[in-house]
Amino acid sequence: MSEPTRDPALRVDPAVSQPLARLMARYCSAIDNGELELWPACFAEDGVYRILTRADFQAGRDFGIWYCGNRRMMADRVSAIRSVNVYEPHVYRHVIGPTEIVAGQDGVLDCETSYQLVRTGYEGDMTLFSVGRYVDRVVCRDGAALFASRTVVTDSCRYDTLVALPI
Amino acid sequence: MSEPTRDPALRVDPAVSQPLARLMARYCSAIDNGELELWPACFAEDGVYRILTRADFQAGRDFGIWYCGNRRMMADRVSAIRSVNVYEPHVYRHVIGPTEIVAGQDGVLDCETSYQLVRTGYEGDMTLFSVGRYVDRVVCRDGAALFASRTVVTDSCRYDTLVALPI
Amino acid sequence: MSEPTRDPALRVDPAVSQPLARLMARYCSAIDNGELELWPACFAEDGVYRILTRADFQAGRDFGIWYCGNRRMMADRVSAIRSVNVYEPHVYRHVIGPTEIVAGQDGVLDCETSYQLVRTGYEGDMTLFSVGRYVDRVVCRDGAALFASRTVVTDSCRYDTLVALPI
Repeated sequence: MSEPTRDPALRVDPAVSQPLARLMARYCSAIDNGELELWPACFAEDGVYRILTRADFQAGRDFGIWYCGNRRMMADRVSAIRSVNVYEPHVYRHVIGPTEIVAGQDGVLDCETSYQLVRTGYEGDMTLFSVGRYVDRVVCRDGAALFASRTVVTDSCRYDTLVALPI
Repeated sequence: MSEPTRDPALRVDPAVSQPLARLMARYCSAIDNGELELWPACFAEDGVYRILTRADFQAGRDFGIWYCGNRRMMADRVSAIRSVNVYEPHVYRHVIGPTEIVAGQDGVLDCETSYQLVRTGYEGDMTLFSVGRYVDRVVCRDGAALFASRTVVTDSCRYDTLVALPI
Repeated sequence: MSEPTRDPALRVDPAVSQPLARLMARYCSAIDNGELELWPACFAEDGVYRILTRADFQAGRDFGIWYCGNRRMMADRVSAIRSVNVYEPHVYRHVIGPTEIVAGQDGVLDCETSYQLVRTGYEGDMTLFSVGRYVDRVVCRDGAALFASRTVVTDSCRYDTLVALPI
């Protein structure tokens, strides 16, 4: 049996929950609406972004399909994506569930959010591209929230397809 | 590089965010739960509803697959749907992401919300029918929110299938 | 024409909406993240859980694919699932829409929430497993929310596949 990891009595101040909700939305819209350059700005300067499979995550691995250790590495990725893809080959659409705060104090929150990601190809074909959850550490300061780390944990344990964009 | 279109410091009054959240939910449940007659009531009297593909939207087109210029046109559509479809051929199920407020003042908000729409046929077959985003102008007055306009922007650039119900 | 079932002017106290939102999230994460033992704890001691098809629900049937009349029956189900499935055959991922409160007073709320459920198999294949809505009665007491009943109403009217886990 798993340890209960969620505190049902946890209260969240609106001064924190509003910026948190905006961050969750902005992250997705940056990727989905062609504003990829705004994606690194969702992270703290030394923020970490990684994509792990469920098996990687359970085994405690730190590196997976993608790893960016700071905002600069993310910006480099974005430049690479922009230079390779002259034509937009496909677009992403995220839908996310509610954010569950697992732990938090002093403006640092650990939280999780489920996602489903649909990819639409040039010909209009839609496919479920990835589902899973975000395991995040978020820093809230002066009314703004940024990811100290975002770990994408995919439900699937394989990747047959190229992950061209951040999930 | 795109212009940043979201203001991270934007504050939203609960007096506005609550009616806004209810409107987003009611719109979907009216369509999904067989209460289509309630759909026009989500709009202002002269509210505009349109469905555009991503390509239409980026090209600045105003007309696409569907266009209703006021509540009466929407009610006419509903009547037509009801008279044609004696048997319910399929049902829709929306799941939407968080609403991102892009701009707002004096009770008029511009906001965007991602959606995924699954269609279930009579035989129980489920298909991803449409994904994309709602680009909305919402009027909040006296504790109630209504769409001044809702533009459905589909990620797909084609329509092979009939759009029988509003998205 | 359907009766309007949603009161647009309904106000919800944050003292109620916060625990409600946490319950909705916790229910999904318990199932999706391998913490199935936490699932019965989302219900009141004599809480009811059932899965009905849309046709069952419209016909006013009380019993469908699954029925648990109290927390103990749910715990038995979980034990059975754990003992049968030595290897995790597949995992679920819920994404839910906003919760729409239909009626409520004295700490008892009737509410509905749309869901989409994706199942990922051992080989990484993702399938839309079920879509529909939760029709819930929630009891809020002392800052915590529990299901007095949760009725899963599936959009599909058939079940070709085994429902191994709660939806």
